[in-house]
Amino acid sequence: MDLPARVGEGVETIDTPALVIDLDAMDRNLAAMADFARAHGMRLRPHAKMHKCAAIAKLQIAAGAVGVCVQKVSEAEALADAGIGDIYISNEVIAETKLARVATLAGRVKLAIAVDSALGVQRLAHAVKAAGTALDVFVEIDVGQGRCGVAPAAAGALAHQVVSHGQPERGLPATGLRFAGLQAYHGRAQHLRSAAEREAAIRHAVALVRAAQASVTSAGISCPLVTGAGTGSFVYEAASAVYGELQPGSYLFMDADYAANDAAPRAPRFEHALFIKSQVMSRGISHAVIDAGHKSHAIDSGLPRVWSLAGAPPLEFSNGGDEHGILLAPSGVTLPELGATVWLVPGHCDPTVNLHTHFVGVRGSLAAGRRPRDVYLAD
Amino acid sequence: MDLPARVGEGVETIDTPALVIDLDAMDRNLAAMADFARAHGMRLRPHAKMHKCAAIAKLQIAAGAVGVCVQKVSEAEALADAGIGDIYISNEVIAETKLARVATLAGRVKLAIAVDSALGVQRLAHAVKAAGTALDVFVEIDVGQGRCGVAPAAAGALAHQVVSHGQPERGLPATGLRFAGLQAYHGRAQHLRSAAEREAAIRHAVALVRAAQASVTSAGISCPLVTGAGTGSFVYEAASAVYGELQPGSYLFMDADYAANDAAPRAPRFEHALFIKSQVMSRGISHAVIDAGHKSHAIDSGLPRVWSLAGAPPLEFSNGGDEHGILLAPSGVTLPELGATVWLVPGHCDPTVNLHTHFVGVRGSLAAGRRPRDVYLAD
Repeated sequence: MDLPARVGEGVETIDTPALVIDLDAMDRNLAAMADFARAHGMRLRPHAKMHKCAAIAKLQIAAGAVGVCVQKVSEAEALADAGIGDIYISNEVIAETKLARVATLAGRVKLAIAVDSALGVQRLAHAVKAAGTALDVFVEIDVGQGRCGVAPAAAGALAHQVVSHGQPERGLPATGLRFAGLQAYHGRAQHLRSAAEREAAIRHAVALVRAAQASVTSAGISCPLVTGAGTGSFVYEAASAVYGELQPGSYLFMDADYAANDAAPRAPRFEHALFIKSQVMSRGISHAVIDAGHKSHAIDSGLPRVWSLAGAPPLEFSNGGDEHGILLAPSGVTLPELGATVWLVPGHCDPTVNLHTHFVGVRGSLAAGRRPRDVYLAD
Repeated sequence: MDLPARVGEGVETIDTPALVIDLDAMDRNLAAMADFARAHGMRLRPHAKMHKCAAIAKLQIAAGAVGVCVQKVSEAEALADAGIGDIYISNEVIAETKLARVATLAGRVKLAIAVDSALGVQRLAHAVKAAGTALDVFVEIDVGQGRCGVAPAAAGALAHQVVSHGQPERGLPATGLRFAGLQAYHGRAQHLRSAAEREAAIRHAVALVRAAQASVTSAGISCPLVTGAGTGSFVYEAASAVYGELQPGSYLFMDADYAANDAAPRAPRFEHALFIKSQVMSRGISHAVIDAGHKSHAIDSGLPRVWSLAGAPPLEFSNGGDEHGILLAPSGVTLPELGATVWLVPGHCDPTVNLHTHFVGVRGSLAAGRRPRDVYLAD
């Protein structure tokens, strides 16, 4: 496969459209979240579905993360193959073929998974028994997302089913399922624009977590951990005295959608670290066309923003189809010339990253308007 | 890389989410377009940006296509490497590094490209001269898309510039640029819902093409070919007596967006041939969650439709994020059980295909409600 850039070459040589990380900004975001988690006594388990990159997962773990979350069995396998040793599939898996892979993987790394059905627990237990391995199991509760997860009152029964599939040895399950706690992620809360709305949503989630904890306790089972939270809400989960682990992903790259949230009080600030490098490949009288369309960036959370250096008024991005973006200039702003480089900030980082096979990492504070100096590649 | 299926296994073994082609339906679509082009004396050059697959391009050429279109240099290189010998990059390229690759590729296959600027022609001519190769050049005119392309009155000057970079040998340019005609694709016309609107849009495009032809002729240059058209409009370009080549792509797979168009009179009918196979991996009381989110299908032209077999009323699809789709049941319709297979018809086939590394081909009329029999794989 052709690479978009070569290590050590200048940023001007990066082929377009390319997914470019400002590594300086990423390093600052990485440290800010690690510091926050440490200061609040929280375990940090960043979501690797965002970056899908073992090299980045290793940086997060080196900075203090206990491991990573993923959303798919194939993501867990890829990260395990690349040397990540502690992985949580924070999602339900119901296919028996996938559960067999989960059970095998549990023999290679410290693995955890979420469940929200009796059938899911039964199939998981069967697969793990056949493989002779053990893994941690979180019962997912629906705390307002309206997607996966059981009602809080049903958590105890499901936890009981999980515990019944552990094979204790000196008091601890050596094979089978270990009940690890509650998965309680509130996806809808992440993008509520006002901090007050996000705080209220997490307050409601915390009440549901407490109800689920009560359900587990009344089944005679202790609840070791509550895990959840995202980039839009983690300050509230951290302040809850209920959650013990944070799962943010997007903080590392910060997309246009998260940046549109009002900042929460006392929250660390994160910088844009993920960009699309594009080039003007056609010019009209009143518009410019760049070589970045929706095959280069996701549009589920809005169109990308055109990055303007050094305080220049931004150009307007309009969707030009699969391989084209159309730039319009507000009054008084000059359109870029044919061949010019244009940087975009994606609307949503996770599905944008998913469209690319490579990151190009650059150093030199692109975000501050200076020209990045060098190029670094990661698969 | 793990494959989603193995050749010869049943459709129930296809891992989810997977991109599945109903090969019987695809064959019928393939033949219907080839027959139409033949009956109307039109050259057919299907757009391979839709499927990005050499095996499918070969089927199209075997059925009578003169070659394929692509939108990117990398697509042209990949198809050339896989044995496709006649490729048209129906798009502008301005980067000198890419133009050097174009010029090299022109030494290996019959290659064409579009231009819409003097700088583009100059850089292309420079690259082709350096490589000592030759290629066909289409001048793109804007026929209503508002994206790339010059105004019709400017076509003659650009054609003249192209011709000036040909090195004639016994009357034909042996190296350098050969003026091949006009690129006149009207993207916006494709998805106008009523056939009358699409007909009116192409009538307008044809008038602009005639003006561009006049501009070229008055520069003393003959215009060998006008190429354009898409799945939503090709019957009108074919009837225009101006266009000589059709570039449709989506007809082969037919997505939900194109299917929402009112059919044009005398147009061949195309069937849905592209599906996402998904599985219910969580069940609520009033919703089901499948393992297909917007990392498995593009949403730029609307959400996917849930495919209902044998006339059953369709379930409603709601976006559940990167890896989840949420299904709601209209009154009187039963939600699928945990573990059940659910088939989706993507809203837009091109960027959906772009999200996957493999197609799984099945035979046995999935589309007619029968169970596909076997599995076939293509990169």
